[in-house]
Amino acid sequence: MELGMIGLGRMGANMAQRLQLAGIAVTGFDPGEQARVAVAGHGIATVDALQALVQALPAPRTLWLMVPSKVVDATLDSLLPLLAAGDVVIDGGNSWYRESQQRAARCAAAGVGFVDCGTSGGVWGLQEGYCLMIGGEKDTVARLSPLFKALAPAADRGWAHVGPVGAGHFSKMVHNGIEYGMMQAYAEGFALMDKKAEFDLDLAKVAEVWRHGSVVRSWLLDLSADALQANPALDGIAPYVEDSGEGRWTVAEAIELDVPAPVITLSLLERLRSRQANSFSDRMLAAMRNEFGGHAIKPAGEAG
Amino acid sequence: MELGMIGLGRMGANMAQRLQLAGIAVTGFDPGEQARVAVAGHGIATVDALQALVQALPAPRTLWLMVPSKVVDATLDSLLPLLAAGDVVIDGGNSWYRESQQRAARCAAAGVGFVDCGTSGGVWGLQEGYCLMIGGEKDTVARLSPLFKALAPAADRGWAHVGPVGAGHFSKMVHNGIEYGMMQAYAEGFALMDKKAEFDLDLAKVAEVWRHGSVVRSWLLDLSADALQANPALDGIAPYVEDSGEGRWTVAEAIELDVPAPVITLSLLERLRSRQANSFSDRMLAAMRNEFGGHAIKPAGEAG
Amino acid sequence: MELGMIGLGRMGANMAQRLQLAGIAVTGFDPGEQARVAVAGHGIATVDALQALVQALPAPRTLWLMVPSKVVDATLDSLLPLLAAGDVVIDGGNSWYRESQQRAARCAAAGVGFVDCGTSGGVWGLQEGYCLMIGGEKDTVARLSPLFKALAPAADRGWAHVGPVGAGHFSKMVHNGIEYGMMQAYAEGFALMDKKAEFDLDLAKVAEVWRHGSVVRSWLLDLSADALQANPALDGIAPYVEDSGEGRWTVAEAIELDVPAPVITLSLLERLRSRQANSFSDRMLAAMRNEFGGHAIKPAGEAG
Amino acid sequence: MELGMIGLGRMGANMAQRLQLAGIAVTGFDPGEQARVAVAGHGIATVDALQALVQALPAPRTLWLMVPSKVVDATLDSLLPLLAAGDVVIDGGNSWYRESQQRAARCAAAGVGFVDCGTSGGVWGLQEGYCLMIGGEKDTVARLSPLFKALAPAADRGWAHVGPVGAGHFSKMVHNGIEYGMMQAYAEGFALMDKKAEFDLDLAKVAEVWRHGSVVRSWLLDLSADALQANPALDGIAPYVEDSGEGRWTVAEAIELDVPAPVITLSLLERLRSRQANSFSDRMLAAMRNEFGGHAIKPAGEAG
Repeated sequence: MELGMIGLGRMGANMAQRLQLAGIAVTGFDPGEQARVAVAGHGIATVDALQALVQALPAPRTLWLMVPSKVVDATLDSLLPLLAAGDVVIDGGNSWYRESQQRAARCAAAGVGFVDCGTSGGVWGLQEGYCLMIGGEKDTVARLSPLFKALAPAADRGWAHVGPVGAGHFSKMVHNGIEYGMMQAYAEGFALMDKKAEFDLDLAKVAEVWRHGSVVRSWLLDLSADALQANPALDGIAPYVEDSGEGRWTVAEAIELDVPAPVITLSLLERLRSRQANSFSDRMLAAMRNEFGGHAIKPAGEAG
Repeated sequence: MELGMIGLGRMGANMAQRLQLAGIAVTGFDPGEQARVAVAGHGIATVDALQALVQALPAPRTLWLMVPSKVVDATLDSLLPLLAAGDVVIDGGNSWYRESQQRAARCAAAGVGFVDCGTSGGVWGLQEGYCLMIGGEKDTVARLSPLFKALAPAADRGWAHVGPVGAGHFSKMVHNGIEYGMMQAYAEGFALMDKKAEFDLDLAKVAEVWRHGSVVRSWLLDLSADALQANPALDGIAPYVEDSGEGRWTVAEAIELDVPAPVITLSLLERLRSRQANSFSDRMLAAMRNEFGGHAIKPAGEAG
Repeated sequence: MELGMIGLGRMGANMAQRLQLAGIAVTGFDPGEQARVAVAGHGIATVDALQALVQALPAPRTLWLMVPSKVVDATLDSLLPLLAAGDVVIDGGNSWYRESQQRAARCAAAGVGFVDCGTSGGVWGLQEGYCLMIGGEKDTVARLSPLFKALAPAADRGWAHVGPVGAGHFSKMVHNGIEYGMMQAYAEGFALMDKKAEFDLDLAKVAEVWRHGSVVRSWLLDLSADALQANPALDGIAPYVEDSGEGRWTVAEAIELDVPAPVITLSLLERLRSRQANSFSDRMLAAMRNEFGGHAIKPAGEAG
Repeated sequence: MELGMIGLGRMGANMAQRLQLAGIAVTGFDPGEQARVAVAGHGIATVDALQALVQALPAPRTLWLMVPSKVVDATLDSLLPLLAAGDVVIDGGNSWYRESQQRAARCAAAGVGFVDCGTSGGVWGLQEGYCLMIGGEKDTVARLSPLFKALAPAADRGWAHVGPVGAGHFSKMVHNGIEYGMMQAYAEGFALMDKKAEFDLDLAKVAEVWRHGSVVRSWLLDLSADALQANPALDGIAPYVEDSGEGRWTVAEAIELDVPAPVITLSLLERLRSRQANSFSDRMLAAMRNEFGGHAIKPAGEAG
């Protein structure tokens, strides 16, 4: 089977390698030369234009998009005119499922198939395999199954056709919402142990022991144990947490469906809060306390 | 009626004045000379020792404690041996209601009455009157009613005998928990308007208009409008919010009684969070994101 | 000054009366005969068609929409073709501010002015006046000021021109978000007192005393005291809380602007939760506890 | 090595078996005959009195308590007088770490050693091994290491001496707090997918695919997949979630140490909420909405 991989960043490059190692003939495209060179170093053919990519593939073509969600539409703008009926586009990135549904309709109008594939596993996927949540038509997904088998941790595990177009990215969105909540739960627990000076706990040791036999064992705990082993006091790391969008979508979807998801929601809000340098809300509270109780206001800039 | 006021800080001094103005003969005691001098300037008799205070009052004596909750027991240690059966001690501070119950028992063993009086109103109480939530025995509270009438906004409003000993401080504790939640709600709303650059809202103007006819009008809003009028951008105020204990008790009590109080609880946690200079929890999240996704960590100390 | 009021429901009918009492000549329209008859009983002219309403008003016309947000666009569809350049439409309902901005553009294309007026005060506005947050062009708002003076609690208080089109409904949206948080804070506090059997507190009495001199005094507390006075145990009321949309918009806006608003957000989620009859989430937790700890599952339908 | 196991419930019985299989000579005691008989069926010696247990063990004796936390003190009351200097008591249950510290002092006064061992693993520990977090003196823990090696998943993994007495139960307390947060995150995610009728997702299938290669893979997810496989709609399960105390302790400790732990805290509150049959808080909100907006109250008992 042959595949065109569009986007050779951290995720796309690793996936191209894993596919290639499994015997899939991958041709990669990325607008950046450096990205192409890096992938070529692993024996993967690369091209420097979408047109060249399309020409390099036998019909019906399979194109895997592994690009930031905000450039998917622009990529389709360029790609769709080059494709023919029967070709298939897979969006393996973190797109919003409703946009995937619209994109499927747009592709369908051109006779092109569309599959949305939520992809989890991060930088470890190359070695350990990726978890793939797939939305699309049954026949199309079946035809692409060799790809999924190559990418997943085991040929028959770690990938699933979960529903029609949109269902893949929807499941991945919820997956990421859960991820936020789990991460926050661990972070709070370790912060509590860190503050408990009385016991002078070795957090890496606690994380390590929990990995074996405990109720909270998980892959995120494995990674936490690694991080704490390497940097027990988490020195040099700013308390600043990014979010990449899926958490927001999860929160919005939950509210739209009248499903209370307080922990996932709070986990997102904590990230927003971590990035606030001078909270207006907290200054307002301090000002109110001063107004009603004469409580002293701490001047800005004074040490904590 | 005569009263001994123990503690002439911000609250005690103001209450002594309001009582004196209402015709109650107040003798004040405070270990600090400056506090005594300030109160004396308002024509209130002061003494510099508890013993002198007790001697200055006719039996049966009425002593009002307006001291920090953590020194109430030490004050009783000194005071109780000086008192006689029939005397009454009122704790008007923010004590934990269970300690008030224990103190009532201790006083009772000496034949001394005890009343717990939750007092709200802050620095504005001198002018506007105090809201008083009173716990104690019916007869005792009735005998003390002239005091409560003098302190409350109107003789028959703003004070109430709400139950047995402990009920006063319990109600005040819940009052303060609600206060946390209300303050946080306003603070979040104003922070949201502050961030909405598109409309360049004049927050003092919005606060002012809400004071008249809106569903959210309140005394806390009146104060917020004042604060925003005086300092529209809340300049020079650190985003650092203290808490004085009652919120913690409210949260603990709610959990003990199996009553979910998420908003009051979160309001407390937000205050804790406002005081964190370098959240371990957030650094842990950043470290985890780096581990699984290769997401860049922001170095400590780098500008936001 | 003359005004056409479109929508004679609870809010529109009361506002029409308050305007009429202030000397504004109001003509009312509502598709429902009952609503028209009720308003006519207060001496207000009514018509049974939009066209008749437009014809009844002198140019330049002023039309006040007081209809559910979901029918505003349909109303404009019918109304705009009947209007002439120089006429003005005021949307006094709870519309989403972004739709108001779009509607203003649509009106402008027809030469018609548009003002968004966030209106607070509920059923009490007829007597006490409404709080009005107004967005629009300076000249237009100035021309309409007699209306706002008539509706607000005092001619010069309780209404304000807060910014360009959209700013009025934006401020009202945030107002309602704050309202959710305040209501939830009170509700939690009263629930905690209700559960504290030891003190057998009279909640109406506590609410009443708090109304005078306390930090938590507010109009919502006045109403709470009324409600508890009338029905101390809140008998016969289902624990089921509706939401009307503005809370959702506030939460979405806060997240979009990276402003953490945990208390407003949780207040919304608590309402969603109040309406869940058989929480999947809670069943999932019970199932997990059974899986790992062998903890007994409570069978569905068994009494609490 | 020989051991006396006190408490042959679900946990104690399984641990006794795992120890016995590893060559530790276990004598079990439980006041309940049925529990003793069950354990005896696995070839473990049992006795029907504490005195007999103490006599059956060679000095210095090792006693493992696996009893509910609320009966630990009563058990020590009976046990301590029977022990001699040099004996050691291990509390393997979910005790509050501060009580463990007090119990250690009490044992020390009698020359008896005390070790607190937080034990995780639930009903699966017999097969998979238990995760053990151990607090106590270095020499004592070293002497007992054969027991820990036998109970843990692998002789050198899954158990750790984390600090002085109290540190074991403290770590286990935090572990359980994290567990609450993780469970709630999964529960919310699955509830959201359950509500998304559009995709008709097979939740067991999604849970299964996530187990392989995803960021959220964990043991709790393994169990969730099992539960959903067995009962896809979670039929017959009441939405009623118990809590066993450690979550409350975690929340209280976090607040005492000024560590905001919003997700762990909310997870506890959600459990409290799941057990409320007729929330006063929600009725209060409904009553307030009726007061200010005339919004209809849903009568109690009316279908959702």
